[in-house]
Amino acid sequence: MVGDTLGTKLISLGHKVKMGSRTANNEKATGWAVRNGNLASNGTFADAAAFGEIIFNCTKGQVSLEALQLAGRENLQGKILVDVSNPLDFSKGMPPLLTISNTDSLGEMIQRQFTDVKVVKTLNTMNCQLMVNPGGLKDPGNVFICGNDADAKTEIESLLKSFGWEKIIDLGDISAARGTEQILPIWVRLMGKLGTPMFNFSIVQ
Amino acid sequence: MVGDTLGTKLISLGHKVKMGSRTANNEKATGWAVRNGNLASNGTFADAAAFGEIIFNCTKGQVSLEALQLAGRENLQGKILVDVSNPLDFSKGMPPLLTISNTDSLGEMIQRQFTDVKVVKTLNTMNCQLMVNPGGLKDPGNVFICGNDADAKTEIESLLKSFGWEKIIDLGDISAARGTEQILPIWVRLMGKLGTPMFNFSIVQ
Repeated sequence: MVGDTLGTKLISLGHKVKMGSRTANNEKATGWAVRNGNLASNGTFADAAAFGEIIFNCTKGQVSLEALQLAGRENLQGKILVDVSNPLDFSKGMPPLLTISNTDSLGEMIQRQFTDVKVVKTLNTMNCQLMVNPGGLKDPGNVFICGNDADAKTEIESLLKSFGWEKIIDLGDISAARGTEQILPIWVRLMGKLGTPMFNFSIVQ
Repeated sequence: MVGDTLGTKLISLGHKVKMGSRTANNEKATGWAVRNGNLASNGTFADAAAFGEIIFNCTKGQVSLEALQLAGRENLQGKILVDVSNPLDFSKGMPPLLTISNTDSLGEMIQRQFTDVKVVKTLNTMNCQLMVNPGGLKDPGNVFICGNDADAKTEIESLLKSFGWEKIIDLGDISAARGTEQILPIWVRLMGKLGTPMFNFSIVQ
Protein backbone atom coordinates (compact mmCIF):
# COMPACT_ATOMS: atom_id res chain seq x y z
CA MET A 1 0.00 0.00 0.00
CA VAL A 2 2.69 2.50 1.00
CA GLY A 3 4.97 1.51 -1.87
CA ASP A 4 2.09 1.65 -4.34
CA THR A 5 1.09 5.14 -3.16
CA LEU A 6 4.60 6.57 -3.10
CA GLY A 7 5.51 4.91 -6.40
CA THR A 8 2.42 6.29 -8.12
CA LYS A 9 3.20 9.79 -6.84
CA LEU A 10 6.80 9.58 -8.03
CA ILE A 11 5.64 8.44 -11.49
CA SER A 12 3.20 11.36 -11.63
CA LEU A 13 6.14 13.67 -10.99
CA GLY A 14 8.04 12.17 -13.93
CA HIS A 15 10.39 9.83 -12.08
CA LYS A 16 11.13 6.28 -13.21
CA VAL A 17 10.16 3.79 -10.50
CA LYS A 18 10.90 0.08 -10.16
CA MET A 19 8.80 -1.62 -7.49
CA GLY A 20 10.68 -4.36 -5.66
CA SER A 21 9.13 -7.49 -4.16
CA ARG A 22 10.33 -10.89 -2.93
CA THR A 23 9.61 -12.34 -6.35
CA ALA A 24 10.10 -10.75 -9.78
CA ASN A 25 6.52 -11.51 -10.80
CA ASN A 26 4.65 -10.40 -7.66
CA GLU A 27 1.05 -9.96 -8.75
CA LYS A 28 0.35 -6.63 -7.00
CA ALA A 29 3.63 -5.13 -8.19
CA THR A 30 3.03 -6.26 -11.75
CA GLY A 31 -0.48 -4.80 -11.64
CA TRP A 32 0.90 -1.54 -10.31
CA ALA A 33 3.53 -1.37 -13.08
CA VAL A 34 0.94 -2.07 -15.79
CA ARG A 35 -1.39 0.65 -14.45
CA ASN A 36 1.39 3.22 -14.23
CA GLY A 37 2.73 3.20 -17.77
CA ASN A 38 6.17 3.48 -19.28
CA LEU A 39 7.95 4.98 -16.28
CA ALA A 40 6.90 2.06 -14.07
CA SER A 41 8.42 -1.40 -13.80
CA ASN A 42 8.83 -4.09 -11.19
CA GLY A 43 11.22 -6.83 -10.16
CA THR A 44 12.90 -8.34 -7.14
CA PHE A 45 14.09 -6.26 -4.20
CA ALA A 46 17.58 -6.62 -5.68
CA ASP A 47 16.39 -5.48 -9.13
CA ALA A 48 14.75 -2.40 -7.60
CA ALA A 49 17.78 -1.56 -5.45
CA ALA A 50 20.13 -1.89 -8.43
CA PHE A 51 17.82 0.26 -10.58
CA GLY A 52 17.17 3.12 -8.17
CA GLU A 53 19.25 6.18 -7.48
CA ILE A 54 17.13 6.69 -4.39
CA ILE A 55 15.65 3.67 -2.60
CA PHE A 56 12.41 3.82 -0.59
CA ASN A 57 11.94 1.27 2.18
CA CYS A 58 8.15 0.84 2.28
CA THR A 59 8.16 -2.64 3.81
CA LYS A 60 6.64 -3.47 7.17
CA GLY A 61 9.10 -2.63 9.93
CA GLN A 62 9.31 -6.20 11.16
CA VAL A 63 10.69 -7.40 7.82
CA SER A 64 12.60 -4.30 6.70
CA LEU A 65 16.06 -5.58 7.58
CA GLU A 66 15.42 -8.87 5.83
CA ALA A 67 14.07 -7.09 2.75
CA LEU A 68 17.14 -4.85 2.64
CA GLN A 69 19.41 -7.91 2.91
CA LEU A 70 17.55 -9.35 -0.08
CA ALA A 71 17.97 -6.02 -1.87
CA GLY A 72 21.70 -6.56 -1.51
CA ARG A 73 24.39 -4.49 0.09
CA GLU A 74 26.15 -4.02 -3.26
CA ASN A 75 22.98 -2.61 -4.84
CA LEU A 76 22.39 -0.12 -2.02
CA GLN A 77 25.96 1.07 -1.54
CA GLY A 78 26.43 4.84 -1.56
CA LYS A 79 22.74 5.50 -2.24
CA ILE A 80 20.10 7.36 -0.29
CA LEU A 81 17.67 5.06 1.47
CA VAL A 82 14.44 6.80 2.44
CA ASP A 83 13.02 4.84 5.35
CA VAL A 84 9.31 5.44 5.84
CA SER A 85 8.69 2.25 7.81
CA ASN A 86 7.71 1.76 11.45
CA PRO A 87 8.64 -1.13 13.76
CA LEU A 88 5.02 -2.01 14.54
CA ASP A 89 4.24 -5.35 16.12
CA PHE A 90 0.63 -6.44 15.64
CA SER A 91 1.25 -9.97 16.96
CA LYS A 92 -0.12 -9.11 20.43
CA GLY A 93 -3.29 -7.57 18.98
CA MET A 94 -4.38 -3.95 18.91
CA PRO A 95 -3.06 -1.43 19.59
CA PRO A 96 0.29 -2.52 18.14
CA LEU A 97 3.47 -2.47 20.19
CA LEU A 98 6.86 -1.42 18.84
CA THR A 99 9.48 -4.09 18.14
CA ILE A 100 12.22 -1.58 18.95
CA SER A 101 11.94 1.55 21.07
CA ASN A 102 13.42 3.88 23.66
CA THR A 103 17.12 2.93 23.37
CA ASP A 104 17.13 2.20 19.65
CA SER A 105 15.05 2.60 16.50
CA LEU A 106 14.56 0.87 13.18
CA GLY A 107 16.12 3.84 11.40
CA GLU A 108 19.28 3.46 13.47
CA MET A 109 19.36 -0.33 13.03
CA ILE A 110 19.20 0.05 9.26
CA GLN A 111 21.96 2.68 9.31
CA ARG A 112 24.17 0.47 11.52
CA GLN A 113 23.69 -2.58 9.30
CA PHE A 114 24.19 -0.63 6.06
CA THR A 115 26.96 1.80 6.92
CA ASP A 116 27.55 2.71 3.26
CA VAL A 117 23.96 3.80 2.78
CA LYS A 118 22.64 7.29 3.57
CA VAL A 119 19.52 6.56 5.59
CA VAL A 120 16.97 9.38 5.69
CA LYS A 121 13.98 8.73 7.93
CA THR A 122 10.87 10.68 7.01
CA LEU A 123 7.12 10.44 6.33
CA ASN A 124 6.69 7.65 8.93
CA THR A 125 4.43 9.74 11.17
CA MET A 126 1.42 9.75 8.87
CA ASN A 127 -0.90 7.78 6.61
CA CYS A 128 0.47 7.10 3.12
CA GLN A 129 -2.31 9.08 1.37
CA LEU A 130 -1.19 12.12 3.32
CA MET A 131 2.49 11.45 2.58
CA VAL A 132 1.93 12.25 -1.10
CA ASN A 133 -0.91 14.73 -0.73
CA PRO A 134 -0.38 17.17 2.14
CA GLY A 135 -2.90 19.48 0.46
CA GLY A 136 -5.55 16.91 1.37
CA LEU A 137 -5.65 18.44 4.85
CA LYS A 138 -6.86 21.99 5.46
CA ASP A 139 -3.71 22.42 7.57
CA PRO A 140 -1.12 19.85 6.39
CA GLY A 141 1.01 20.14 9.54
CA ASN A 142 4.65 19.09 9.64
CA VAL A 143 6.77 16.37 8.16
CA PHE A 144 9.86 15.34 10.13
CA ILE A 145 13.16 14.29 8.63
CA CYS A 146 16.35 12.94 10.18
CA GLY A 147 19.56 11.30 9.08
CA ASN A 148 23.31 11.54 9.36
CA ASP A 149 24.05 12.88 5.86
CA ALA A 150 23.21 16.55 5.35
CA ASP A 151 23.31 16.40 1.53
CA ALA A 152 21.02 13.40 1.49
CA LYS A 153 18.53 15.22 3.70
CA THR A 154 18.67 18.27 1.43
CA GLU A 155 17.90 16.10 -1.60
CA ILE A 156 14.98 14.38 0.15
CA GLU A 157 13.67 17.74 1.39
CA SER A 158 13.46 18.80 -2.27
CA LEU A 159 11.52 15.66 -3.05
CA LEU A 160 9.16 16.32 -0.11
CA LYS A 161 8.60 19.84 -1.44
CA SER A 162 7.72 18.36 -4.82
CA PHE A 163 5.06 16.30 -2.98
CA GLY A 164 3.64 19.59 -1.65
CA TRP A 165 5.28 19.65 1.80
CA GLU A 166 6.15 23.11 3.07
CA LYS A 167 6.77 22.69 6.79
CA ILE A 168 9.67 20.26 7.02
CA ILE A 169 11.44 19.90 10.37
CA ASP A 170 14.97 18.47 10.35
CA LEU A 171 15.35 16.77 13.75
CA GLY A 172 19.06 16.02 13.30
CA ASP A 173 20.89 12.71 13.06
CA ILE A 174 19.31 9.29 12.57
CA SER A 175 18.90 8.71 16.31
CA ALA A 176 15.97 11.13 16.11
CA ALA A 177 14.15 8.20 14.47
CA ARG A 178 13.46 7.09 18.05
CA GLY A 179 11.31 10.16 18.44
CA THR A 180 9.38 9.81 15.20
CA GLU A 181 8.86 6.05 15.56
CA GLN A 182 7.67 6.41 19.16
CA ILE A 183 5.03 8.88 18.05
CA LEU A 184 3.18 5.91 16.50
CA PRO A 185 1.44 4.76 19.70
CA ILE A 186 -0.33 8.12 20.07
CA TRP A 187 -0.97 8.19 16.32
CA VAL A 188 -2.83 4.87 16.58
CA ARG A 189 -4.87 6.16 19.53
CA LEU A 190 -5.71 9.34 17.66
CA MET A 191 -6.82 7.39 14.61
CA GLY A 192 -9.25 5.47 16.82
CA LYS A 193 -10.49 8.65 18.45
CA LEU A 194 -10.85 10.69 15.25
CA GLY A 195 -12.17 7.77 13.20
CA THR A 196 -9.83 8.52 10.31
CA PRO A 197 -6.14 8.19 9.46
CA MET A 198 -6.27 11.55 7.66
CA PHE A 199 -4.71 13.79 10.33
CA ASN A 200 -1.25 14.98 11.16
CA PHE A 201 0.92 16.54 13.84
CA SER A 202 1.57 20.25 13.57
CA ILE A 203 4.14 21.88 15.81
CA VAL A 204 2.70 25.19 17.01
CA GLN A 205 4.51 28.07 18.70
CA MET B 1 9.06 23.78 39.10
CA VAL B 2 5.98 22.01 37.73
CA GLY B 3 4.26 21.91 41.13
CA ASP B 4 5.12 25.55 41.78
CA THR B 5 3.69 26.61 38.41
CA LEU B 6 0.51 24.53 38.66
CA GLY B 7 -0.01 25.46 42.32
CA THR B 8 0.35 29.16 41.57
CA LYS B 9 -2.16 28.91 38.72
CA LEU B 10 -4.66 27.04 40.91
CA ILE B 11 -4.31 29.70 43.63
CA SER B 12 -4.91 32.45 41.06
CA LEU B 13 -8.16 30.69 40.15
CA GLY B 14 -9.27 30.73 43.79
CA HIS B 15 -8.44 27.15 44.79
CA LYS B 16 -6.76 26.24 48.08
CA VAL B 17 -3.50 24.43 47.45
CA LYS B 18 -1.22 22.52 49.81
CA MET B 19 2.19 21.78 48.32
CA GLY B 20 3.60 18.44 49.43
CA SER B 21 7.27 17.61 49.85
CA ARG B 22 9.35 14.92 51.55
CA THR B 23 9.67 17.14 54.60
CA ALA B 24 7.07 19.46 56.14
CA ASN B 25 9.47 22.41 56.11
CA ASN B 26 10.92 22.08 52.61
CA GLU B 27 12.48 25.45 51.84
CA LYS B 28 11.15 25.90 48.30
CA ALA B 29 7.63 24.79 49.26
CA THR B 30 7.59 27.12 52.26
CA GLY B 31 8.76 29.99 50.07
CA TRP B 32 6.06 29.19 47.53
CA ALA B 33 3.38 29.14 50.25
CA VAL B 34 4.54 32.47 51.68
CA ARG B 35 4.53 34.11 48.23
CA ASN B 36 1.07 32.81 47.40
CA GLY B 37 -0.94 34.11 50.33
CA ASN B 38 -3.80 32.71 52.35
CA LEU B 39 -4.94 30.04 49.94
CA ALA B 40 -1.48 28.46 49.91
CA SER B 41 0.12 26.13 52.43
CA ASN B 42 2.66 23.34 52.45
CA GLY B 43 3.47 20.14 54.31
CA THR B 44 4.53 16.56 53.73
CA PHE B 45 3.32 14.50 50.80
CA ALA B 46 0.90 12.87 53.25
CA ASP B 47 -0.34 16.27 54.50
CA ALA B 48 -0.97 17.41 50.93
CA ALA B 49 -2.71 14.17 49.94
CA ALA B 50 -4.97 14.29 53.03
CA PHE B 51 -5.79 17.96 52.37
CA GLY B 52 -6.57 17.79 48.64
CA GLU B 53 -9.79 16.84 46.94
CA ILE B 54 -7.77 16.54 43.75
CA ILE B 55 -4.12 15.50 43.92
CA PHE B 56 -1.52 16.55 41.33
CA ASN B 57 1.51 14.34 40.85
CA CYS B 58 4.19 16.82 39.78
CA THR B 59 7.17 14.77 40.92
CA LYS B 60 9.87 13.45 38.61
CA GLY B 61 8.67 10.23 37.02
CA GLN B 62 11.51 8.19 38.47
CA VAL B 63 10.35 8.94 42.04
CA SER B 64 6.59 9.27 41.49
CA LEU B 65 5.65 5.86 42.86
CA GLU B 66 7.78 6.40 45.96
CA ALA B 67 6.31 9.87 46.51
CA LEU B 68 2.78 8.45 46.21
CA GLN B 69 3.63 5.73 48.73
CA LEU B 70 4.79 8.49 51.08
CA ALA B 71 1.55 10.37 50.37
CA GLY B 72 -0.25 7.33 51.74
CA ARG B 73 -2.84 5.07 50.20
CA GLU B 74 -5.40 6.09 52.84
CA ASN B 75 -4.97 9.77 51.96
CA LEU B 76 -5.41 9.18 48.23
CA GLN B 77 -8.31 6.71 48.35
CA GLY B 78 -11.26 7.59 46.13
CA LYS B 79 -9.67 10.84 44.93
CA ILE B 80 -8.69 12.05 41.49
CA LEU B 81 -4.95 11.92 40.89
CA VAL B 82 -3.85 14.15 38.02
CA ASP B 83 -0.59 12.67 36.75
CA VAL B 84 1.46 15.20 34.78
CA SER B 85 4.77 13.37 35.22
CA ASN B 86 6.96 11.62 32.68
CA PRO B 87 9.22 8.58 33.21
CA LEU B 88 12.34 10.37 32.00
CA ASP B 89 15.74 8.87 32.77
CA PHE B 90 18.57 11.40 32.55
CA SER B 91 21.13 9.01 34.09
CA LYS B 92 22.58 8.06 30.68
CA GLY B 93 22.94 11.71 29.61
CA MET B 94 21.03 13.67 26.98
CA PRO B 95 18.67 13.06 25.39
CA PRO B 96 16.86 11.29 28.22
CA LEU B 97 15.56 7.74 27.84
CA LEU B 98 12.27 6.52 29.29
CA THR B 99 12.29 4.27 32.36
CA ILE B 100 9.08 2.61 31.13
CA SER B 101 7.77 2.46 27.58
CA ASN B 102 6.08 0.51 24.82
CA THR B 103 4.38 -2.24 26.88
CA ASP B 104 3.62 -0.11 29.94
CA SER B 105 3.54 3.47 31.15
CA LEU B 106 3.93 5.40 34.37
CA GLY B 107 0.26 6.35 34.29
CA GLU B 108 -0.72 2.67 34.17
CA MET B 109 1.77 1.71 36.88
CA ILE B 110 0.30 4.33 39.21
CA GLN B 111 -3.24 3.17 38.44
CA ARG B 112 -2.29 -0.48 39.07
CA GLN B 113 -0.61 0.31 42.38
CA PHE B 114 -3.40 2.61 43.55
CA THR B 115 -6.54 0.88 42.35
CA ASP B 116 -8.81 3.08 44.54
CA VAL B 117 -7.50 6.26 42.93
CA LYS B 118 -8.89 7.78 39.73
CA VAL B 119 -5.75 8.47 37.72
CA VAL B 120 -6.12 11.10 35.00
CA LYS B 121 -3.05 11.58 32.84
CA THR B 122 -2.81 14.97 31.17
CA LEU B 123 -0.56 17.97 30.50
CA ASN B 124 2.57 15.77 30.33
CA THR B 125 3.25 16.59 26.69
CA MET B 126 4.32 20.19 27.26
CA ASN B 127 6.39 22.64 29.28
CA CYS B 128 4.83 23.68 32.60
CA GLN B 129 4.54 27.36 31.61
CA LEU B 130 2.37 26.30 28.72
CA MET B 131 0.30 23.94 30.91
CA VAL B 132 -1.16 26.91 32.75
CA ASN B 133 -1.03 29.47 29.95
CA PRO B 134 -2.09 28.07 26.60
CA GLY B 135 -2.73 31.62 25.45
CA GLY B 136 1.03 32.11 25.55
CA LEU B 137 1.19 30.46 22.13
CA LYS B 138 -0.35 32.05 19.04
CA ASP B 139 -1.91 28.62 18.38
CA PRO B 140 -2.08 26.73 21.70
CA GLY B 141 -2.54 23.31 20.07
CA ASN B 142 -4.01 20.34 21.90
CA VAL B 143 -3.91 18.93 25.38
CA PHE B 144 -4.42 15.17 25.71
CA ILE B 145 -6.24 13.46 28.55
CA CYS B 146 -6.74 9.81 29.42
CA GLY B 147 -7.93 7.71 32.33
CA ASN B 148 -10.33 4.93 33.26
CA ASP B 149 -12.93 7.06 35.08
CA ALA B 150 -15.18 9.14 32.82
CA ASP B 151 -16.44 11.45 35.59
CA ALA B 152 -12.92 12.15 36.76
CA LYS B 153 -11.90 13.08 33.21
CA THR B 154 -14.93 15.38 32.89
CA GLU B 155 -13.93 17.15 36.11
CA ILE B 156 -10.35 17.58 34.99
CA GLU B 157 -11.45 18.77 31.56
CA SER B 158 -13.33 21.57 33.34
CA LEU B 159 -10.18 22.44 35.21
CA LEU B 160 -8.19 22.46 31.97
CA LYS B 161 -10.77 24.79 30.44
CA SER B 162 -10.34 27.11 33.43
CA PHE B 163 -6.61 27.17 32.57
CA GLY B 164 -7.61 28.35 29.08
CA TRP B 165 -7.48 25.05 27.20
CA GLU B 166 -10.03 24.70 24.42
CA LYS B 167 -8.84 21.79 22.30
CA ILE B 168 -8.84 18.83 24.69
CA ILE B 169 -8.54 15.33 23.21
CA ASP B 170 -9.72 12.39 25.32
CA LEU B 171 -7.61 9.45 24.18
CA GLY B 172 -9.50 6.87 26.24
CA ASP B 173 -8.38 4.69 29.12
CA ILE B 174 -5.17 5.05 31.08
CA SER B 175 -3.22 2.77 28.71
CA ALA B 176 -3.18 5.75 26.32
CA ALA B 177 -0.55 7.15 28.69
CA ARG B 178 1.89 5.02 26.67
CA GLY B 179 1.17 7.27 23.73
CA THR B 180 1.53 10.57 25.54
CA GLU B 181 4.63 9.52 27.49
CA GLN B 182 6.34 8.19 24.36
CA ILE B 183 5.84 11.54 22.66
CA LEU B 184 8.55 12.90 24.97
CA PRO B 185 11.53 11.74 22.90
CA ILE B 186 10.39 13.83 19.91
CA TRP B 187 9.44 16.68 22.26
CA VAL B 188 13.03 16.77 23.54
CA ARG B 189 14.39 16.77 19.98
CA LEU B 190 12.02 19.54 18.96
CA MET B 191 13.05 21.64 21.96
CA GLY B 192 16.67 21.35 20.83
CA LYS B 193 15.74 22.19 17.24
CA LEU B 194 13.43 25.12 18.04
CA GLY B 195 15.61 26.44 20.86
CA THR B 196 12.65 26.86 23.20
CA PRO B 197 10.32 24.67 25.26
CA MET B 198 7.39 26.95 24.33
CA PHE B 199 5.77 24.88 21.61
CA ASN B 200 3.07 22.26 21.44
CA PHE B 201 1.53 19.51 19.34
CA SER B 202 -1.59 20.39 17.38
CA ILE B 203 -3.56 17.66 15.67
CA VAL B 204 -4.61 18.95 12.26
CA GLN B 205 -7.16 17.51 9.86
